[in-house]
Amino acid sequence: MIDPLVVEELIDSALAEDIGFGDLTSELVIPADARAELALNAREDIVLAGIEIAARIFRRRSECTVELRVKDGDRVKAGALMGKVAGPARGLLAVERTALNFLQHLSGIATLTSQYVERIAGTRAVLIDTRKTLPGLRALEKHAASLGGARNHRLRLDDGVLIKDNHISVCGSIALAVKRARSGVPVLTKIEVECDTLAQVEEALEAGADMILLDNMDAEDMRRAVALSGGRVPLEASGGVRMETIRAIAEAGVDFISVGRITQSAPAVDIGLDAVVRV
Amino acid sequence: MIDPLVVEELIDSALAEDIGFGDLTSELVIPADARAELALNAREDIVLAGIEIAARIFRRRSECTVELRVKDGDRVKAGALMGKVAGPARGLLAVERTALNFLQHLSGIATLTSQYVERIAGTRAVLIDTRKTLPGLRALEKHAASLGGARNHRLRLDDGVLIKDNHISVCGSIALAVKRARSGVPVLTKIEVECDTLAQVEEALEAGADMILLDNMDAEDMRRAVALSGGRVPLEASGGVRMETIRAIAEAGVDFISVGRITQSAPAVDIGLDAVVRV
Amino acid sequence: MIDPLVVEELIDSALAEDIGFGDLTSELVIPADARAELALNAREDIVLAGIEIAARIFRRRSECTVELRVKDGDRVKAGALMGKVAGPARGLLAVERTALNFLQHLSGIATLTSQYVERIAGTRAVLIDTRKTLPGLRALEKHAASLGGARNHRLRLDDGVLIKDNHISVCGSIALAVKRARSGVPVLTKIEVECDTLAQVEEALEAGADMILLDNMDAEDMRRAVALSGGRVPLEASGGVRMETIRAIAEAGVDFISVGRITQSAPAVDIGLDAVVRV
Amino acid sequence: MIDPLVVEELIDSALAEDIGFGDLTSELVIPADARAELALNAREDIVLAGIEIAARIFRRRSECTVELRVKDGDRVKAGALMGKVAGPARGLLAVERTALNFLQHLSGIATLTSQYVERIAGTRAVLIDTRKTLPGLRALEKHAASLGGARNHRLRLDDGVLIKDNHISVCGSIALAVKRARSGVPVLTKIEVECDTLAQVEEALEAGADMILLDNMDAEDMRRAVALSGGRVPLEASGGVRMETIRAIAEAGVDFISVGRITQSAPAVDIGLDAVVRV
Amino acid sequence: MIDPLVVEELIDSALAEDIGFGDLTSELVIPADARAELALNAREDIVLAGIEIAARIFRRRSECTVELRVKDGDRVKAGALMGKVAGPARGLLAVERTALNFLQHLSGIATLTSQYVERIAGTRAVLIDTRKTLPGLRALEKHAASLGGARNHRLRLDDGVLIKDNHISVCGSIALAVKRARSGVPVLTKIEVECDTLAQVEEALEAGADMILLDNMDAEDMRRAVALSGGRVPLEASGGVRMETIRAIAEAGVDFISVGRITQSAPAVDIGLDAVVRV
Amino acid sequence: MIDPLVVEELIDSALAEDIGFGDLTSELVIPADARAELALNAREDIVLAGIEIAARIFRRRSECTVELRVKDGDRVKAGALMGKVAGPARGLLAVERTALNFLQHLSGIATLTSQYVERIAGTRAVLIDTRKTLPGLRALEKHAASLGGARNHRLRLDDGVLIKDNHISVCGSIALAVKRARSGVPVLTKIEVECDTLAQVEEALEAGADMILLDNMDAEDMRRAVALSGGRVPLEASGGVRMETIRAIAEAGVDFISVGRITQSAPAVDIGLDAVVRV
Repeated sequence: MIDPLVVEELIDSALAEDIGFGDLTSELVIPADARAELALNAREDIVLAGIEIAARIFRRRSECTVELRVKDGDRVKAGALMGKVAGPARGLLAVERTALNFLQHLSGIATLTSQYVERIAGTRAVLIDTRKTLPGLRALEKHAASLGGARNHRLRLDDGVLIKDNHISVCGSIALAVKRARSGVPVLTKIEVECDTLAQVEEALEAGADMILLDNMDAEDMRRAVALSGGRVPLEASGGVRMETIRAIAEAGVDFISVGRITQSAPAVDIGLDAVVRV
Repeated sequence: MIDPLVVEELIDSALAEDIGFGDLTSELVIPADARAELALNAREDIVLAGIEIAARIFRRRSECTVELRVKDGDRVKAGALMGKVAGPARGLLAVERTALNFLQHLSGIATLTSQYVERIAGTRAVLIDTRKTLPGLRALEKHAASLGGARNHRLRLDDGVLIKDNHISVCGSIALAVKRARSGVPVLTKIEVECDTLAQVEEALEAGADMILLDNMDAEDMRRAVALSGGRVPLEASGGVRMETIRAIAEAGVDFISVGRITQSAPAVDIGLDAVVRV
Repeated sequence: MIDPLVVEELIDSALAEDIGFGDLTSELVIPADARAELALNAREDIVLAGIEIAARIFRRRSECTVELRVKDGDRVKAGALMGKVAGPARGLLAVERTALNFLQHLSGIATLTSQYVERIAGTRAVLIDTRKTLPGLRALEKHAASLGGARNHRLRLDDGVLIKDNHISVCGSIALAVKRARSGVPVLTKIEVECDTLAQVEEALEAGADMILLDNMDAEDMRRAVALSGGRVPLEASGGVRMETIRAIAEAGVDFISVGRITQSAPAVDIGLDAVVRV
Repeated sequence: MIDPLVVEELIDSALAEDIGFGDLTSELVIPADARAELALNAREDIVLAGIEIAARIFRRRSECTVELRVKDGDRVKAGALMGKVAGPARGLLAVERTALNFLQHLSGIATLTSQYVERIAGTRAVLIDTRKTLPGLRALEKHAASLGGARNHRLRLDDGVLIKDNHISVCGSIALAVKRARSGVPVLTKIEVECDTLAQVEEALEAGADMILLDNMDAEDMRRAVALSGGRVPLEASGGVRMETIRAIAEAGVDFISVGRITQSAPAVDIGLDAVVRV
Repeated sequence: MIDPLVVEELIDSALAEDIGFGDLTSELVIPADARAELALNAREDIVLAGIEIAARIFRRRSECTVELRVKDGDRVKAGALMGKVAGPARGLLAVERTALNFLQHLSGIATLTSQYVERIAGTRAVLIDTRKTLPGLRALEKHAASLGGARNHRLRLDDGVLIKDNHISVCGSIALAVKRARSGVPVLTKIEVECDTLAQVEEALEAGADMILLDNMDAEDMRRAVALSGGRVPLEASGGVRMETIRAIAEAGVDFISVGRITQSAPAVDIGLDAVVRV
Repeated sequence: MIDPLVVEELIDSALAEDIGFGDLTSELVIPADARAELALNAREDIVLAGIEIAARIFRRRSECTVELRVKDGDRVKAGALMGKVAGPARGLLAVERTALNFLQHLSGIATLTSQYVERIAGTRAVLIDTRKTLPGLRALEKHAASLGGARNHRLRLDDGVLIKDNHISVCGSIALAVKRARSGVPVLTKIEVECDTLAQVEEALEAGADMILLDNMDAEDMRRAVALSGGRVPLEASGGVRMETIRAIAEAGVDFISVGRITQSAPAVDIGLDAVVRV
């Protein structure tokens, strides 16, 4: 759910950052009327994100044509031809690295996310993302996470209330913090409370929290929290979740599991942009 | 070598992206005059990058004080206290995530880079970075790579000439491409040629390239290329370099080894920002 | 809950818009070292909003000092001295109109809002705002509304789901629309459904909406909707609410009443910035 | 007389402000290929301003078509169909509120302005606007005022000289102030002097002012000022002018009457954007 | 009469343009704690403009101190020491070229302007500038022209009406063009008409123009135009005015002479920024 | 080698600067549907630069058509018709001055550059530009210089190392400065050292500089420097080079001669935009 306006602005500044005054090599070496055709090839198994952005980048060089065989969210096998781009050689070569930088990073996020999601298949738990994103890329990274199968946690600090340990300790009690939040929060926004202990979970339930974050609890305590809540509010497990541990957490019965790693530490996937040779 | 102007602009847009209209939770829950103190703790072994940016972010909330015990480029052990931040609680909590997002990502790059650098210690090879960076973060990521021990390849498309296979095929020959580039390139900028074969290496040497990129060559061919060049121009090994293979490549005698992974796929390092409890 | 970053940017562009290349009159007529002192006087009864922005505008001309006797949210009587500003005459005169334009407009909103709020005192209904704001001023206007005693509805299109008649008719049914929204909405965001009829209210309740908007219903139907809901979800009355009709609506038992007029049609209040004459 | 460049920039930032990362509701609920058609209906008598901006906003979503039956400046009766918009449903719903926010506000200004203008019909007086506009909307609001029948006073501080009481008191005398202004003012810009008394009017006439502002004078004094000037320079009446008092002021014989209220306090007019139902 | 806001923005973008990611040489070669002191020396006779901007650029690197012995508008002799700058060496060297680029260009304009002004000393004619300025530098260049002794013509297209030959031919007649302009022009803005012939001058006088531009007329015709006007409105001579011809034009009795060359073709003056050597 | 993105942004801000809220004269005087046709005529001998930018400016007013008979880099004779522009009269007249301001300035640079280049024809010396450009216009001015026959020196501070006297004195010695620079410079960037004496030239050669700048040396010393270098590295002559002295400098055998004057002091060339009269 990213608006075209957001995407256009990101593309503009990414191109400006990479190109500077101009693409020195292509301007000097390639004739103005030379044309090129490039094929977009998957070099590993990928859940795709960013292909529409990549296509948009090429189309900005107005005479380029882009034909895609896949779309964002698709699962693509290593070796698959994903699409072709054709147009003036100078323009294509000037923007190809920027297009790939978006595509490889965002597909990396979608792919890693899908791997976490697969681990918890069949449980009631849903994977969610965090605000641990790279500066400037929040909208795109959260979109990539959702293409990989995650739901989004809040987008920024103004569209959700999450009362953390620091808030509670400054404020005095969970009850008081929730009461203050409730009196002023926009009416379509929920209030979540971070809890370290079962006692805090009880306090948060009583205070009327809309959702509870179980911070770094062990599986046993999570199960007890699930029992305590009895389905009254959704529970989120958070803190140091890894591929090896996520299944056990899901089986404790929580509703959501948040993983910072999917946006903060996803390795780029390998996608090639190769010259098409005409025989 | 990042100018303060560049950093300020990145900080502004990162804060705007994360805060939106305001930090809903802190504004509602925390009294305007409450103060907080946070400690910056390393939770794993880290080569530090971004600590000066993090400090600058906190200082923008003007009444915050920041005391650092470490500086960018330092090697920090897991468990080390890196510094303290104190100031108005609302302001601190509004910016802490953004500060950590920069710090964890950039230190991730410096740390991963340093691991590659260690692998090739004692050889003549120097690690270098690429243009495979995340959109908007080029300057910071290249700086982080250099803090981790790498040298920089070109910063963008206007400050270096790299004639790749696509340029060569459109242009017709390496000789012609180098000649065209030489006639118009800014006088302090070098010309590098990407070569897939030893025949191309010879062609590039003859054409007067300032530097040669050996693309995806095996160790044997790299050794031959080193012999061919005989020290006339620096040679760069590139393409799919990994932790397991980098040492062998270095030992083939090349001058530079470029690794996209250090900027494109570095996992965030674990750094905590913990409330200081006064007893 | 407006972040200083948002305010600074608005001030900069407002000053640029009004000043252009420079304040022709003051530069030509007033000596560079002349000083002035101005008093901020309320000329009618006001609920104050924007006084901190006004102060910030004067302080940007760095040698100005501002002393305020009141703060945002205060009720101020006609004739009250609200504060004083002193500094270089050229700088003061260049920015005074911009400071007043913010202050008079925002206080107009807070004052009108408080009048609606007074009308529904003693009922369970809470006044809320809408997205009917003036382009560019959303954050400030919503803040002014809350200073006048309203709560905020969603801030923009990405932080709340409001399924309107157009969405329902395109989608086919309320049930399907809510189901689709539920599957992808960020986890701290609520889903509201706009209903024209009691049949739709039942449908929305069944579909699991988090909140229901009663669109242009008469008092009788609103009372029935309140009975139908039985407190399960909050109900919002909306559509053409005016000072003369709001009390009756509140007494129908709804939880929220939204009024576009408070942000879209609030007349500016009269505040003077008068030269202080020294005797 | 607003340049397209100015309008485009305002539209972009208004859309960004309202949409944020994306239109959550439409993206989740409405299929990507659904289409919608909306009719723009006047719900009260209106002097139209902003309809071309609204059309431009819809056209930015490139596949939208807009058919208008009216144009800016037209007088439209309650109930009139003003035009139709058709296109992809997601895009239409994402921008409709922003389009209406411009249109309702600007038409509110044009409509209120026209009411003041009607009051002084048949006199020599011409209604003019002021710098009392809402931050960021100066160009559009002044244009709307002129569509309502007013002339513009200066656009900003650099395109007209208005010597006010504060300037005079700091400078020492009207004569000196006008002399200083005359020596440096751009050659196509006029010099106006604000006068509180008839003595000041005489002083300003003698000093060679190009225009005189009569500040808060009663009708009797205004008539005397008109006599004093004898048509040598235009006279502007200013200060607290209201619908009930403007006729008497006009009949005192002044050339211009300025009213801040037309831009600062115009209520939005009621315009609907209703789904077109196909039978 | 340039507002600080305008200047700050120009400085920021000029520094960003010249520095890019950082000052490579200084960062690599100069220790972080090294200090430097530079002296600003005039190397030819100069009318100074831009010295306050230069000082502001150095002060942005906050630890720099700037001591000026001269100010904008001063006439400075070749060899004069104009001021000193001291601070961190890296910061000073990073911004010195940008500071000089502003200073040498703007002082070039003020100096050339003053030479034209001297040529017409003792006549009634006043030198004025035009819109022939370099893109982005309009405000600064017009300010520099006024420091050199010129008055400003309009600042841009929205603050003055100049009806040129193209307007007249499209519109049909001078009379009609002036009438249309008069009906809608902001009330503090004058209307000037460009005339090629004496017949047009008569037409423009009759139509009530506020000022008349004599386009490329010979001295004889200018004298006749002066007689025709008889002092009713100011006359501006324009078109290909050069140092050798300006005196004769002034002696024809016109009020203003406009010269595009002073902003469009002024050579930079020679100003040095030399290291201060301590003995 | 200027990227379209760079050009678009410059055009936008130049138009905004000149137009402000709108073109007052054309909006008032010219009917909305009037059309105009303008011819672009060379009024002196010109080496053309900026004609593609001028065309782009006209095309932004979308209904304008532009037909060019010449292209950037062409030598055009006085009197030549260079092209025609046709479209809506209001739009054409609003942008013509901005288009000419770019075109006359940039062609001025290309033309002056070509005159210096002609002076050194037949020698080995190549003319190069400097960072002495006008703030905001660096990319365009350097491109214009290259159209006039010059090569570019570095584009900004981050794409070339030039160790100047200040760097050397702070650093201690040329040897140390070069060593430090070598250890951290991006691998495609060269290191140049500024030398005042032959002793320094020897030092720089020994230190391994990639290029040497001979600062203000007389012809005799330059010849000795050429002999010393023996072709090992390129030599650049710099400092106060003028039309009368450049040939002698070139004949001393240097490789490059840099002239700040070509970008900093080029007078605008005379190009007319004249109405096409239909008979």
